[in-house]
Amino acid sequence: MSLEEHTNSMLPVIEAELHRQIARLDQPRLRPFYEMLTYHMGWTGENLGRGAKGKRIRPMILLLVTLSCNQEWLRAIPAAASVELVHNFSLVHDDIQDNSPIRRGRSTIWTMYGIPMAINVGDALFSMANQAILDLAKVNSAEKVLKAGKILHDTCLDLTCGQFLDMSYEKRNDMSIDDYWPMIEGKTAALLSACAQIGAVLGNANDATIEQYRIFGRNLGLAFQVQDDIMGVWGEEALTGKSTASDLLEGKNSLPILYGISQKGKFAQRWNASRLRPEDVEEAAQMLKNEGAYEFASREAIRLTDQASEALQKADPQEEAGAALAELVNKLLARES
Amino acid sequence: MSLEEHTNSMLPVIEAELHRQIARLDQPRLRPFYEMLTYHMGWTGENLGRGAKGKRIRPMILLLVTLSCNQEWLRAIPAAASVELVHNFSLVHDDIQDNSPIRRGRSTIWTMYGIPMAINVGDALFSMANQAILDLAKVNSAEKVLKAGKILHDTCLDLTCGQFLDMSYEKRNDMSIDDYWPMIEGKTAALLSACAQIGAVLGNANDATIEQYRIFGRNLGLAFQVQDDIMGVWGEEALTGKSTASDLLEGKNSLPILYGISQKGKFAQRWNASRLRPEDVEEAAQMLKNEGAYEFASREAIRLTDQASEALQKADPQEEAGAALAELVNKLLARES
Repeated sequence: MSLEEHTNSMLPVIEAELHRQIARLDQPRLRPFYEMLTYHMGWTGENLGRGAKGKRIRPMILLLVTLSCNQEWLRAIPAAASVELVHNFSLVHDDIQDNSPIRRGRSTIWTMYGIPMAINVGDALFSMANQAILDLAKVNSAEKVLKAGKILHDTCLDLTCGQFLDMSYEKRNDMSIDDYWPMIEGKTAALLSACAQIGAVLGNANDATIEQYRIFGRNLGLAFQVQDDIMGVWGEEALTGKSTASDLLEGKNSLPILYGISQKGKFAQRWNASRLRPEDVEEAAQMLKNEGAYEFASREAIRLTDQASEALQKADPQEEAGAALAELVNKLLARES
Repeated sequence: MSLEEHTNSMLPVIEAELHRQIARLDQPRLRPFYEMLTYHMGWTGENLGRGAKGKRIRPMILLLVTLSCNQEWLRAIPAAASVELVHNFSLVHDDIQDNSPIRRGRSTIWTMYGIPMAINVGDALFSMANQAILDLAKVNSAEKVLKAGKILHDTCLDLTCGQFLDMSYEKRNDMSIDDYWPMIEGKTAALLSACAQIGAVLGNANDATIEQYRIFGRNLGLAFQVQDDIMGVWGEEALTGKSTASDLLEGKNSLPILYGISQKGKFAQRWNASRLRPEDVEEAAQMLKNEGAYEFASREAIRLTDQASEALQKADPQEEAGAALAELVNKLLARES
């Protein structure tokens, strides 16, 4: 089976499980609350379409890892829903924290219902993620469920640490590349690492194999974030010839920008002088490229992707599922090779 | 042992366990984040003193129930920390949602660090509550830990439901007493009910006994909230002759106020005419009393307290621990008898 065939068989089951978990709120008195969650999940409301749901990458990775360990992926479905719920909880709170009006092409929860309600929607998704992981107990041993739960809960604390670092960096302008990695460890790598680890635990893998899957997920997450950061400065430039470059405008703590600052060249001078205006962005992006930021970040992305691939090989995945995982990685990181 | 002696032996152990759980953030890079949590817990910062920590009522109830089931309370300590962490997570988010500047006589987290950081502090406390409950596995069977975890996570979703109802009621003025009970089931009763249930699970109680402890905790929580609502309108009136009556000013969905509205008398007329000003409050409180709201709410508080006591008796607690629990109930509800 190809990645596409796996996706076609897994995605509807993931979606059904997410519906089942969120249906806990499907009660007459709670109807408007329930609808806030179904809106966020991309099931109801404005601009429905493929983009509204997100790609459900995290549950896909979890299930493919379980399958790579030669186990039936259906036994891991509540965990797949759980990691997607954690991801969505963190998005709802992130959007408040970042003051973001749009997510997946649609209005964010806080812009529609206000900050107090949006905080509560995030808390509900978080609670459901915790409930979902315990639903594993129906077809997995209590010890395995506890092991998966511990990975999940530790990861949620890591997410808050990454979020803290990101928010506290916004008030500083003495950031270095050394500050970057711990931030994205929490914000991006922790949850992808947890997906791979939990998938392996539920795949009955031994500790050495679980560790390789952890390294795989972690490096995939880091590479994914670096790739995202590159797109955030140079956007679809290569394809469209036009920079989107919103990260420069927002002053985001991204790898290319931190690299540029550390070079103390023309970019750093311009960056430290005053906040960039939209008309400055193209020139600043070009300065960054001239000073080697694009090459540096691209090399980092490749290095991390190679480490992810190496760990995946060491984990010795079942042939077909391993190939699907590798294909997913390539798709995610949009590598030419 | 009296309640005071139990408190003296349990409180320091609860506090040490809370410190141990929160120390997960005690890392150089995360120092300011860690200090936000230690501030909220009442260990560092302004106005330290007995009031800063809160009374740790929830962990006390949990441990006393375990002891009432003739089990060593030390085995339940991580669960005691967990319920206190859930309580504190919900306070941090509540204070943002209610726009409250003061908690336990000290500035709230969001007024000190801003809303984005405060959301994240709440999320961290929530994550630690989930981690703490799994720490039970060190001295309890995996099955018991899963049972306690399920109660905890279901309760957290109940909390968000109560919070949703409370916030959505703020925009309505057609509220009735029927709307009141589901709201406080979630906001107040669910967590006290969970404390008693988890205490009984860890006390190796059978299902019938666990159910009595659940009813005990639930009715205690409901009675506690009704009592709080009475104080919110008539305050220390009986003692000081002066009404504090902040709930009337804030337009809170409290039982006496909803009763007054339902009577469609002079109070309801005044209430619906315009928001009360500070100088109107004393008269409005008197109107409410004249129309029977004080008597109604007091009768409800007594009814619920009696139901709690009855369930506690049926649970057949070990003599000394049961007496301490009963004493705690009386203290909490400040009953004359």
